[in-house]
Amino acid sequence: MLVNGRHYRTVWMENGKVKMIDQPLLPHRFEIAEMKNHTETTEAIKTMIVRGAGAIGATAGFGMAQAFLNAPENGFDDYVKKAVETLRSTRPTAQNLFYAIDRVLAAAKKESSVKAKRKVAVSEAQRIADEDAESCKRIGEIGEKLLKDSCNISTHCNAGWLAFVDWGTALSPIYAAKRSGKKIFVYVDETRPRCQGARMTAWELLQEGIPHAVIADNATGHYMKAGKMDIVIVGADRIAANGDVANKIGTYSSAVLAKENGIAFYVAALTSTIDLKCESGDKIPIEERGQEEVTHMFGRTEDGKHGKVRIMPEGSQVFNPAFDVTPAKYITGIITEKGIVKANREEINNLFKS
Amino acid sequence: MLVNGRHYRTVWMENGKVKMIDQPLLPHRFEIAEMKNHTETTEAIKTMIVRGAGAIGATAGFGMAQAFLNAPENGFDDYVKKAVETLRSTRPTAQNLFYAIDRVLAAAKKESSVKAKRKVAVSEAQRIADEDAESCKRIGEIGEKLLKDSCNISTHCNAGWLAFVDWGTALSPIYAAKRSGKKIFVYVDETRPRCQGARMTAWELLQEGIPHAVIADNATGHYMKAGKMDIVIVGADRIAANGDVANKIGTYSSAVLAKENGIAFYVAALTSTIDLKCESGDKIPIEERGQEEVTHMFGRTEDGKHGKVRIMPEGSQVFNPAFDVTPAKYITGIITEKGIVKANREEINNLFKS
Repeated sequence: MLVNGRHYRTVWMENGKVKMIDQPLLPHRFEIAEMKNHTETTEAIKTMIVRGAGAIGATAGFGMAQAFLNAPENGFDDYVKKAVETLRSTRPTAQNLFYAIDRVLAAAKKESSVKAKRKVAVSEAQRIADEDAESCKRIGEIGEKLLKDSCNISTHCNAGWLAFVDWGTALSPIYAAKRSGKKIFVYVDETRPRCQGARMTAWELLQEGIPHAVIADNATGHYMKAGKMDIVIVGADRIAANGDVANKIGTYSSAVLAKENGIAFYVAALTSTIDLKCESGDKIPIEERGQEEVTHMFGRTEDGKHGKVRIMPEGSQVFNPAFDVTPAKYITGIITEKGIVKANREEINNLFKS
Repeated sequence: MLVNGRHYRTVWMENGKVKMIDQPLLPHRFEIAEMKNHTETTEAIKTMIVRGAGAIGATAGFGMAQAFLNAPENGFDDYVKKAVETLRSTRPTAQNLFYAIDRVLAAAKKESSVKAKRKVAVSEAQRIADEDAESCKRIGEIGEKLLKDSCNISTHCNAGWLAFVDWGTALSPIYAAKRSGKKIFVYVDETRPRCQGARMTAWELLQEGIPHAVIADNATGHYMKAGKMDIVIVGADRIAANGDVANKIGTYSSAVLAKENGIAFYVAALTSTIDLKCESGDKIPIEERGQEEVTHMFGRTEDGKHGKVRIMPEGSQVFNPAFDVTPAKYITGIITEKGIVKANREEINNLFKS
């Protein structure tokens, strides 16, 4: 997508170097970080210079390609093996990380010469990144049909291109609608406690020139009742086999409010987010995150540095669930790269038959 | 209520001086500000060292008493008249301000000697403060019956004693329940954008030793669905004749989520908050406040000062409605100092017959 009028992906490979948007600096500074070798790329994943399922997967793939490129002919396999180990240990719950590592390994395994292994590792890593971007773009083309001209869209958290290689999921139909000439307006939930809406989604929309306003999460219901929102599109962290959706805390509230006010509520996600082995939403564990996300607020201080302020008294307890589960009954449909399905077992199963 | 184990009111008069809790310093510092004369007291209202309907009213009453005390015998009436003018201009939409000024004026008018006027002005101001505290205490006694032992209460924003002279409205039943030996737990919505929940309500509960946790507003629905909340009590800024309630932004969302999850939703307010001339909630204008409340977050910086951080990019628009309207159908009941009524025209009217 566009940044300062130029097209960027979140992560890409160039002459053996992995380049990526330095995400912790956003939205206050836009810089490209450059990782010379797989060790630096591994560190970038670990320190979350890159974040988001699709973007992490692509970065891991490129990191693997770097390992193959830099491995000495003498001790080649050992070097790669060690690289795999450190790369795997960066974000132990990121499924796309393991998927990308294994795919590059499997592709290289088919070749016998070091030269051929290097070549295929690079091309396979590139393919992983391209596939992510292509699938997200498809979600945009498919989801765009749901957006009428002059419609007002509500979104929660950041399921934009920064979390993937390009396009994103929930924001992809918005980018597609803009390109097809539709007039649209986006209400961006700031998404406390980490404010990914105010930080990431607002920045993405600003760069793409899409009219939007950031609102406190508390104001979403008010605008729904006032008839100001026509459709809600959010992303998903995990979709159960029955259509229940785990996503950023506050998604459930948005879904209930949408239903109460007769507003369509869509989830946009790659089919890889669907976990058929997970029967229903109540089987999805909800991560409880650190207290500091609630007790403090992070941002740019008055002297232009990254800093924080404490917003509540010392001594008060904090609960900080990172996700909630939206039962399938509140969901109008799930937009995937293979089409839009209802949030039920049968239609979800059909996505995997072909 | 208690602060560091000692009982305080938000504002009181002592030897001609008006003393008040310096509220902008909370929750990070507890200090008593002292206003030597009505000019200083007027300034304190203007700069919001004191805020909240009941507390502003009481402070204005005490300020009037100071004006009477300090007015020179020569030019007495002019001095008082000028004091009234400056006091009235501080917070032009605060109904309790005008009510208190007029009451002290009317009481003094009945006396003819300067000495008697001074005496009655002080006693009338004291009566206004005492009545506010007494009415709030009654809300506590009445509302406390709704709270079962071991119950979990959700509240939004701050309708505690800091906004009144003592006890508060939504928090008063909680303080009463604590004193009657019930075990209770309070979920405090942080209440973006101004975070009155995280700042004020958490501080009040901490001082009173009431177990509580602050949560992001986004987490309220999640805990309701999980069966963790038994009852919601919130305050009100204005109640229409049909029972619709205007209150801090996010109240409507909480009410819809409560109904969806079968949780009782109560509004606690003094009968003076009911505006019989306002037919229904859609007649209540919604104030749009400054963008900085959303673009920035205010609190204690790392070096212990009061500061702010910017949490979103420059250039993104912000909408910041201060209040929303909760339709009467979502409200289980309204707790007033005269008893609990259903949120409908008939029962509300009955409050004013007697």
